[in-house]
Amino acid sequence: MPYALSVEPLGRSLSVAADQTLLDALREAGIEIQADCGGEGLCGHCSVLLTAGEVEPLDTSRWDERPGEGGRWVLACQARLLSDATIRLPARALAGAMAATGVIAGGEHVAAFDGGCDMPLVQRRAVIVSAPTVDDSTADWQRLEAALTEACPDTPPLRGGVEVFQELPVLLREGRFHIEAILADYGPFREVLDLAAPGADDAPELGIAVDVGTSTVVAQVVDLHTGHLLGQSAGTNVQKRYGADVITRIIWAEETPDGPAAMQRLIVGQIADLVADACTRSNCEPKGIIAASLSGNATMATFLLGAYPGTIRREPHVPLARDLPTFHAGELGLPFHPRAPVFLAPAVSGFVGGDIASGVLATGMAHADELSLLVDVGTNGEIVLGNKDWLICCSCSAGPAFEGVDIAAGIHAVPGAIDRIEYDAAADAFVWQTIGDQPPIGLCGTGLLEALAAMLRGRLIDRQGHIVRLTETKLIRDGDDEREIIIVPQSQSGTGADIVLRHSELDNLIRSKAAVYAGISCLLEAVQVQAEDIQRVYIAGSFGNRLRVEEAVAIGMLPDVSRERISFVGNTSLAGAYQTLVSRQARGRISEIARRMTYLELSNLPNFMEEFVRALFLPHTELERFPSQRGVAAQ
Amino acid sequence: MPYALSVEPLGRSLSVAADQTLLDALREAGIEIQADCGGEGLCGHCSVLLTAGEVEPLDTSRWDERPGEGGRWVLACQARLLSDATIRLPARALAGAMAATGVIAGGEHVAAFDGGCDMPLVQRRAVIVSAPTVDDSTADWQRLEAALTEACPDTPPLRGGVEVFQELPVLLREGRFHIEAILADYGPFREVLDLAAPGADDAPELGIAVDVGTSTVVAQVVDLHTGHLLGQSAGTNVQKRYGADVITRIIWAEETPDGPAAMQRLIVGQIADLVADACTRSNCEPKGIIAASLSGNATMATFLLGAYPGTIRREPHVPLARDLPTFHAGELGLPFHPRAPVFLAPAVSGFVGGDIASGVLATGMAHADELSLLVDVGTNGEIVLGNKDWLICCSCSAGPAFEGVDIAAGIHAVPGAIDRIEYDAAADAFVWQTIGDQPPIGLCGTGLLEALAAMLRGRLIDRQGHIVRLTETKLIRDGDDEREIIIVPQSQSGTGADIVLRHSELDNLIRSKAAVYAGISCLLEAVQVQAEDIQRVYIAGSFGNRLRVEEAVAIGMLPDVSRERISFVGNTSLAGAYQTLVSRQARGRISEIARRMTYLELSNLPNFMEEFVRALFLPHTELERFPSQRGVAAQ
Repeated sequence: MPYALSVEPLGRSLSVAADQTLLDALREAGIEIQADCGGEGLCGHCSVLLTAGEVEPLDTSRWDERPGEGGRWVLACQARLLSDATIRLPARALAGAMAATGVIAGGEHVAAFDGGCDMPLVQRRAVIVSAPTVDDSTADWQRLEAALTEACPDTPPLRGGVEVFQELPVLLREGRFHIEAILADYGPFREVLDLAAPGADDAPELGIAVDVGTSTVVAQVVDLHTGHLLGQSAGTNVQKRYGADVITRIIWAEETPDGPAAMQRLIVGQIADLVADACTRSNCEPKGIIAASLSGNATMATFLLGAYPGTIRREPHVPLARDLPTFHAGELGLPFHPRAPVFLAPAVSGFVGGDIASGVLATGMAHADELSLLVDVGTNGEIVLGNKDWLICCSCSAGPAFEGVDIAAGIHAVPGAIDRIEYDAAADAFVWQTIGDQPPIGLCGTGLLEALAAMLRGRLIDRQGHIVRLTETKLIRDGDDEREIIIVPQSQSGTGADIVLRHSELDNLIRSKAAVYAGISCLLEAVQVQAEDIQRVYIAGSFGNRLRVEEAVAIGMLPDVSRERISFVGNTSLAGAYQTLVSRQARGRISEIARRMTYLELSNLPNFMEEFVRALFLPHTELERFPSQRGVAAQ
Repeated sequence: MPYALSVEPLGRSLSVAADQTLLDALREAGIEIQADCGGEGLCGHCSVLLTAGEVEPLDTSRWDERPGEGGRWVLACQARLLSDATIRLPARALAGAMAATGVIAGGEHVAAFDGGCDMPLVQRRAVIVSAPTVDDSTADWQRLEAALTEACPDTPPLRGGVEVFQELPVLLREGRFHIEAILADYGPFREVLDLAAPGADDAPELGIAVDVGTSTVVAQVVDLHTGHLLGQSAGTNVQKRYGADVITRIIWAEETPDGPAAMQRLIVGQIADLVADACTRSNCEPKGIIAASLSGNATMATFLLGAYPGTIRREPHVPLARDLPTFHAGELGLPFHPRAPVFLAPAVSGFVGGDIASGVLATGMAHADELSLLVDVGTNGEIVLGNKDWLICCSCSAGPAFEGVDIAAGIHAVPGAIDRIEYDAAADAFVWQTIGDQPPIGLCGTGLLEALAAMLRGRLIDRQGHIVRLTETKLIRDGDDEREIIIVPQSQSGTGADIVLRHSELDNLIRSKAAVYAGISCLLEAVQVQAEDIQRVYIAGSFGNRLRVEEAVAIGMLPDVSRERISFVGNTSLAGAYQTLVSRQARGRISEIARRMTYLELSNLPNFMEEFVRALFLPHTELERFPSQRGVAAQ
């Protein structure tokens, strides 16, 4: 009788015969993990974590036994099931597994990429170094290098600090030439951060993946050995006190003495705080963090380094760097291992930054045959179109309207935020859902967009977004300065006051959606592609999975393509940071992506303004572009 | 009428027609320097320093104008002589020039190596970075990288610390995209140490080349831009207080708590002191030092890093490392620019260290067709035999006798040291010369070796080195414990006492020379080569240029080859350190040399002891090996 095997973090469930090894079962299911010795139980590379159920035999080699990981290690090539069971694939196996399945990493969708001898940004490698003999007096360092290179061929040259050389001869001999190296990937070289006797240090290798957003910073703490997400923490970017958008912050930093240094201190301090918070919740030590991968737009990257940001806001919007060297945590002031490598996602241009390169990496669109469109709506709107052969991108000043900036009722996706809303014409009232089913206190980005669609359908606004009484309603009233629509009356509101959207606020939202749509149109025109040729549309950024595709098309933010082609992929900047944290191949790919992407400066295009103005209608002045909306618009 | 042109540091003198460019004149003389633009006056690579005389035109490009270098820069491709003149080739031209001439670098013979786009360990590069345009918003860092790579293609990836990124955007724009980068070569990557506006910093780029000898440490301060030796300082290795030889020091470091760290502090402090001294004498600032190349045996290298040295003295004599990563000066505690690269010459084995790899590099024997023998007699004796196809080496425990250790009259090559001596049989007295023509106070290594030959010829000792009255002499007397020979009577001595050599001291000297000869014999036998096949013999180490070849063969330390094949090349460890300081190609070559060299462990050879015992005669038990000495020996 076969047993059920759950495979984490892939979320797959396999049926496995009692006489089948786990390795065979995984391979049958298309999940390739490394087994360099050919399944002989020798190399240890197919080691997986058994978190539930019984198998035999367990892996008794001492290096991989780590208490506190919530499971026991087994060699997949040797183990057979004795019951239903759950296993978790370690980080080194994950890359390969992703190729077969597409995987949810850190709660986000990330794309398929191939396996191979991959490497997290930092990795603990247990190796057996050949011992010297009378006929072989090769130097200690070259022995270590040979053992590490044999474990993973075709890797770059090895370096180490002086203290590593001070420890090496004694540790090698105390451990009878068994040794563990904490190995960091710096791109053109690898560096031994620390050496340890086998099993001497049981602390897990921790890394962090951080999305440094203009509005929100999210930090994840990851076990580099297993790929597990151990904890996560997020907060409003503390630089926001100097401006909601990047331009305002750049001006502040330019006009303030030591402004860039102040911006650096703020963001570095915040990352440290978020990581400390995530660590506290997951019972691990921030000082155990030995790797960091950060993803943010070009301005956020510039502030992270404390560099002058003024070139970004001035023509021709030059960023500080595309690929950056991998820094040491110490030189950035991050309170982790001082030599912990810090990888920063590369920027394409001043307004298409590392967050977008991360998104392209995470969706896998840069290596797909099909033509894909990535739309990342955050404080700005960035758009990428392309496939494995070409990539073109642009940035449109969408403004932070969908993030609730300058909209009185606009709030983050917190409990009480309306994230689904429709207009009930019979009752002349809105019906809504809130996050956490709390009394409504405002609308998050998804709620704002849905509200716009609901008002259009309910004829509370016209196609230009003007609040006009096309229908009998008591929800429209004249406010102090302008007309407004009551979304939630005081009696039902969690704030004790009416929740309203004002005319000028609707205008802001429409300008945002128009900028996004015009950007998409310009990209399509630049490469002479029609909207219907787009096979995949990825919506990343502020809009959570709750946003309904229909609504985004209804207001004309997205082109009118088949709805099943559109998916919401959440925070792909964070997903890319996670991938580059755990995979050398992903780091190589993101660099290649940034190099390959052609940047289109919209303000240089004669037709951009025209496209923008046309898109200021709901959904568009040219209704033939939105065949599915004819019924609505004809009202 | 032609003018006379002196070319420094080559010491060449050329006759140059008035209508000839300097570039043409140099090329005619076989001195190849770079002129990438084909002599159009555009690339600036052929820039040379005019230190005397008149030429026109001068090079008026501002980047290369440096006050205080004792001359004016001229483009060799443009300049013609108006008078007799002297020019100095800069470091970047030197490598190429060496190929044609063989050059005395830092007062030492170094061998030919090829030119090409070479690079000192650190180099100031003035570049013009392409300015951004509306159509080109490439990032600042990638612009700098492109400009630096264009100046020197096929160089490794570029890195920089955070502070470099903090300076880059502003400096680029302040200098209208003219910028100077201080660029360090770390092997697998280049690192921008500092950026400066063009001409902002007039201080020369200083580097140091250091021979870390067991007995003596020599430091040279070099202008990295011109290749000039600015100053030199030497002193007895301060670690000597814990042992004259490496074994004694290793034991001390093993048995003393924090012994390796103490050894590191001693040698690092001494290098700092020597450099400070050399800087004072040459009016430059130690903190201006931005590069260091150190060469020493495996034990000295281990102590430099503060690492455990015990593996070197125990079978199978494993060194810490062959190639080492290039360190930062700061992590070694050297008080220079904290990120100054520190290159260490690679060791072949525990007893054939970086000093010998430097010697093989400096002699050029690893890239020559002819079969060469390198004999480095210092505290130990190391021997290398080979050519461009193969290299084999060994170490023989020669002991420090020729350095005067355990010999009462043995002193360093200081004023008053006898360095040439003969026996006048008619007068029954020695005649000698001393360094500086001072009254004699002892014998340096050369003097000791010459004394041995003189005594043998004068029949004051027999072929076993026993003091026997084979001739009438008043110079032999019985001392307190043993027989001795009076070299200098009290009346002529600068010490106020007789200068004597005792029987046991002669025995020490003979054991030393026998160990060297036996090592040579074993290498020859290992590769089945005869002594007469050796086309070049290089004698490096303690023996200065004053040692006469004839005497070295007479006592049987060197094989009896044609005397014109033998040359004294001085401190090749220092010469190699200089080369690796000023040339990336040399750094590549020394690494290749260390990898290529086969180490022969003499104590594993069944015939070594036999060879050693045979060589304890003067010159040898088998006189047929020394045909030129038959007359002497037959006496």
